[in-house]
Amino acid sequence: MSPDQFRELGRRMVDWIADYMERVESLLVLSRATPGEVGAALPAAAPERGEPWDAIFGDLERIIVPGLTHWQSPNFFAYFPCNASGPGILGELLSAGLNVNGMMWATSPAATELETRMLDWMARAMALPEKFVSTSANGGGCIQGTASESTLIAMIAARARAGPGADLVAYASAHAHSSIVKAAMILGIARGPEDRERVRLIEVDGSYRTRPEALEGAIRADLEAGRTPFFVCATVGTTSTTSVDPLDEIGGVLARAGLAGRTWLHVDAAHAGPAMLCEEFRWMFRGVEHADSVCMNPHKWMLTNFDCDLFWTSDREALVSALSITPEYLRNAASESGAVIDYRDWQIPLGRRFRALKLWFVLRHYGLEGLRAHLREHVRLAAMLERWVAADARFELAAPRTLNLVCFRLRGEGAGAEDANRRLMEALNASGRMYLTHTVLNGRTVLRVAIGASGTQERHVADAWGLIQRTAGEVLGA
Amino acid sequence: MSPDQFRELGRRMVDWIADYMERVESLLVLSRATPGEVGAALPAAAPERGEPWDAIFGDLERIIVPGLTHWQSPNFFAYFPCNASGPGILGELLSAGLNVNGMMWATSPAATELETRMLDWMARAMALPEKFVSTSANGGGCIQGTASESTLIAMIAARARAGPGADLVAYASAHAHSSIVKAAMILGIARGPEDRERVRLIEVDGSYRTRPEALEGAIRADLEAGRTPFFVCATVGTTSTTSVDPLDEIGGVLARAGLAGRTWLHVDAAHAGPAMLCEEFRWMFRGVEHADSVCMNPHKWMLTNFDCDLFWTSDREALVSALSITPEYLRNAASESGAVIDYRDWQIPLGRRFRALKLWFVLRHYGLEGLRAHLREHVRLAAMLERWVAADARFELAAPRTLNLVCFRLRGEGAGAEDANRRLMEALNASGRMYLTHTVLNGRTVLRVAIGASGTQERHVADAWGLIQRTAGEVLGA
Repeated sequence: MSPDQFRELGRRMVDWIADYMERVESLLVLSRATPGEVGAALPAAAPERGEPWDAIFGDLERIIVPGLTHWQSPNFFAYFPCNASGPGILGELLSAGLNVNGMMWATSPAATELETRMLDWMARAMALPEKFVSTSANGGGCIQGTASESTLIAMIAARARAGPGADLVAYASAHAHSSIVKAAMILGIARGPEDRERVRLIEVDGSYRTRPEALEGAIRADLEAGRTPFFVCATVGTTSTTSVDPLDEIGGVLARAGLAGRTWLHVDAAHAGPAMLCEEFRWMFRGVEHADSVCMNPHKWMLTNFDCDLFWTSDREALVSALSITPEYLRNAASESGAVIDYRDWQIPLGRRFRALKLWFVLRHYGLEGLRAHLREHVRLAAMLERWVAADARFELAAPRTLNLVCFRLRGEGAGAEDANRRLMEALNASGRMYLTHTVLNGRTVLRVAIGASGTQERHVADAWGLIQRTAGEVLGA
Repeated sequence: MSPDQFRELGRRMVDWIADYMERVESLLVLSRATPGEVGAALPAAAPERGEPWDAIFGDLERIIVPGLTHWQSPNFFAYFPCNASGPGILGELLSAGLNVNGMMWATSPAATELETRMLDWMARAMALPEKFVSTSANGGGCIQGTASESTLIAMIAARARAGPGADLVAYASAHAHSSIVKAAMILGIARGPEDRERVRLIEVDGSYRTRPEALEGAIRADLEAGRTPFFVCATVGTTSTTSVDPLDEIGGVLARAGLAGRTWLHVDAAHAGPAMLCEEFRWMFRGVEHADSVCMNPHKWMLTNFDCDLFWTSDREALVSALSITPEYLRNAASESGAVIDYRDWQIPLGRRFRALKLWFVLRHYGLEGLRAHLREHVRLAAMLERWVAADARFELAAPRTLNLVCFRLRGEGAGAEDANRRLMEALNASGRMYLTHTVLNGRTVLRVAIGASGTQERHVADAWGLIQRTAGEVLGA
């Protein structure tokens, strides 16, 4: 495709996306496609000859759009958000246009150095301890695809630090993300999802936070049995309820057990991390100085397109030594000088996209003030929804709210209440006018409304609550 | 950012990229940035307030462009190529605009079903066995970020198939990619890059292909010692020389050892895979029916932006069972129906970008004919360069050419010849007018010219050869 044809089609695509931004609110947020429907609308084989772009744009509208669940809809309240933004899209576009592979410093110095600087900017903006900044003795950060990958590499570094031959045990909250057990499965430490033997899922308190006493008991029992507690994952903002594990108390547990500086403490702040830009939420990170690594996802709630997970460690040596391998064809003078960072040694893949561009654009376009305003507004809306739920006697709040996630349910116990809550969720999602998901707390189905889509404003939350109230009336009346 | 501001800035960015496409040939292909130079040009802290886009575009030109190694330059002959194209960029742009997370079918049915269809299109276009197509009993494919990730998940599936408690051993060519050993390190099977104990790096023949007899001997010795040969990686297109392991003979080795259907055979065709679109290169895949998994990278040499690695398996059950874990908050009716694919269980991360769009655009814009023409032209240019090298008595060809990579060196033995070849490479790369990298074969430095950048035409190869000849004269005369 010639530059001129790209110029023309690029403008057409930009316009299509701008139009999509304007209309996404009016689309059914959850796709009604049935299994196989999209696939059946596509030809069985690739075309032998090139096709015109009018046909491609036509199929985009006819086949793809109805098959999408619109994560950019302001009526998307499911899971956690996945924030796109204008600057984020421009960053992805530029990254695609340059299409450099930043696997090593030498293969594009700007890709590595902009990324290092962005991680330092963010570390300072979140008031992370100095040991996570790239200019510290043994720290620094980089962009991973997802928090799952951060968990995995943290666990790999932890294993390297523990050394060979040890009988390894990991610890995480019973509410920790599934990626912790998945990482242990990948590393061969846990045999499968049901293998709790090697990843101890620690009991939580009434607010769904890791109970430090329970963690301490588990660690002591393992030490007595001659096992090595090599990895602890603390979650700041769990997926089910955004509960916050007490980092300072967990640090204390490790210190009392003589494991400080030995057991690797990873902080998974995938969703809540961006809130650390705001001073009033920094209590969540009290004790983060005990951590060996921290991750958070600008791609969730910080207006930076997926994928963008930020990972910091204060022990890059352990990480790099566990992941570095240098065949002849990758050797180069810059790497051998020791004066540069080769991010290939900080991650699972070899190749890497220039993802720092989108973060740079987001930080410069919005400024820290703009990002704080985005976060604070959603927390305000969640507090508002929380009050509305509390004021409706048919509902109960199901977990403490820490940020922008409200967990609630129709009151009642037993199968009838379970059924009512499930039917409420299904009816809301079938409406196409909002999308929310559930979790289970203490054996009871709980609805989750995560307020964080890039475009979600007060009126969307108010409309959603109105719909929830009316639908609840139908479900309870039926 | 409002849709209208995005419309305006999106057009500006599209124009910037179109201009970049036009001028990239004239830029110094290898950046002359020194360590720390790019970082030093960036402020120490993120801005508190948003900045204007004129400043951002200015810094892009002033700080980023000089810090790039231009993988899209037609004078880029290093490593393997990293193909961008107009349709590929449009696909990335659209993916960013929609910003859906296709972790499960339910979270965007079109993302999953378009991807499944694209993998089927490609399997058929490459004449892969039917067992790799999604409608087969236990097969199918998906997009991974890189071939390293494909290797890793193949090894994970292989370990699951071998079952618990086995004393595992893996096998790969001594010329296999470093990601094989890295995967074994991640899985905890190899302790480190020097641990050849668990990944047997099998001797190659004079053409740098795995010697089947050597593989057979290693497997027999391990079986006799009670170990379990759980994984064999065959490489179709090695990084150093694009040599091709004999798949049919490797399949025969496994059959004779009674390991067919037990030991997992993975085919890493990261670079050479796209050539399977052309019938004349399909000899390289003779015996691929013995494989349990295959991967290849459209992001290398098939005009599809990074990242896009295609992975197929004929044993999706082993893969999914090894990677699946379902917390309550991800449960949904579609997944539980068993009628859909949830690609989160085919990969390391949970979240996933809508990467199938770019592959769809590339296949429809160029058609298979257009892609074959792209591949064949580069093979023709490589054959041409090979003849030129052979005709210059100062040089010798250093490895058989199978596709678009030419390996050669200045003749001579010992330190003097080593030094001359290193100085030749350094002088060429310092010129900024071409970029090539090296490998070491039989202890001797060899220069690699990989002809595959999206825009590389005959005149670029002719200019490069002229420069190589002149620079060789200077190096030898000095």
